[in-house]
Amino acid sequence: MAAADKINLAEKLAAFSEHWDPKLVDTIDDYDIKLVKLLGDFVWHSHAAEDELFLVLKGAFRMDFRDRQVRVGAGEMIVVPHGVEHKPFAEQECEILLLERRGVVNTGNAEAGALTRSALERI
Amino acid sequence: MAAADKINLAEKLAAFSEHWDPKLVDTIDDYDIKLVKLLGDFVWHSHAAEDELFLVLKGAFRMDFRDRQVRVGAGEMIVVPHGVEHKPFAEQECEILLLERRGVVNTGNAEAGALTRSALERI
Repeated sequence: MAAADKINLAEKLAAFSEHWDPKLVDTIDDYDIKLVKLLGDFVWHSHAAEDELFLVLKGAFRMDFRDRQVRVGAGEMIVVPHGVEHKPFAEQECEILLLERRGVVNTGNAEAGALTRSALERI
Repeated sequence: MAAADKINLAEKLAAFSEHWDPKLVDTIDDYDIKLVKLLGDFVWHSHAAEDELFLVLKGAFRMDFRDRQVRVGAGEMIVVPHGVEHKPFAEQECEILLLERRGVVNTGNAEAGALTRSALERI
C-alpha cells in the first residue's frame, strides 16, 4: 500500500468472515488499526500496560466487566483501560475497529488458547 | 467520566457546531481521540514525528497532498504519515474522528494562526 492511501472499512470487512480473528488494516505510529468480527463469547483477560479502543462499525456487542456490563452499538466506542479485566460477547455478529499498541496479544493475560492471535494477517 | 464508559459519537457531535475545532472525547494510552467538524479549507502543514488518523463518520472531505488528492467518505479512513504535507478540504460539512498522539498541534509546522488549537475542550 502506498503511503496515505484511503481505506474503505466495509470493503475490508467483506474480505474475511472469521470471528475473533483481528485483521491488520493500517498503522499509526506504533499502533495497529485492526478490524474484527465478533460472535459469541471471548475469554476474560486484561492487558497489563495497554489501553484498547473498540469502535463499533456494525451491530452491537456487550463488554462484560467484573462488576457490570456495557452494551456498545454501531456509532459507539469504548476504551478499556489497561489492567481492567474484560470479556466481549456478541449475541449476533458485530463488526469492530480495534486500536491498540503493536504487539498486544488479543487474549492478554489469559492462558494462550484457541482464540489467541499474535501474528496478524494484513488485509 | 468513569473508566470504560461507552461514548456515543453522534451525541458528542451534536454537542458542538464549530468547524476545525477538535474536541477531546477520550484517550487511549497517550493518544487523544477527538471529534472534529470540517468545512472549507484548512492550512498546509505536516507533523514532524506523528502520524494522524482521520476516520470519516459523516459526509466526505478531500485530503490534498502536494502530488495528489484523495476523497475520503463516510466509512473510510486515511492515515497521514508523519512528515507528509497535507491539507484537508471539505466542500460540505464533514464529521471526523481524529486520533493522534497527545500534544500534537493541529496546524503542525505551519505558523500558528486562527485555525491553531493547542488546548482542547473535552466534551
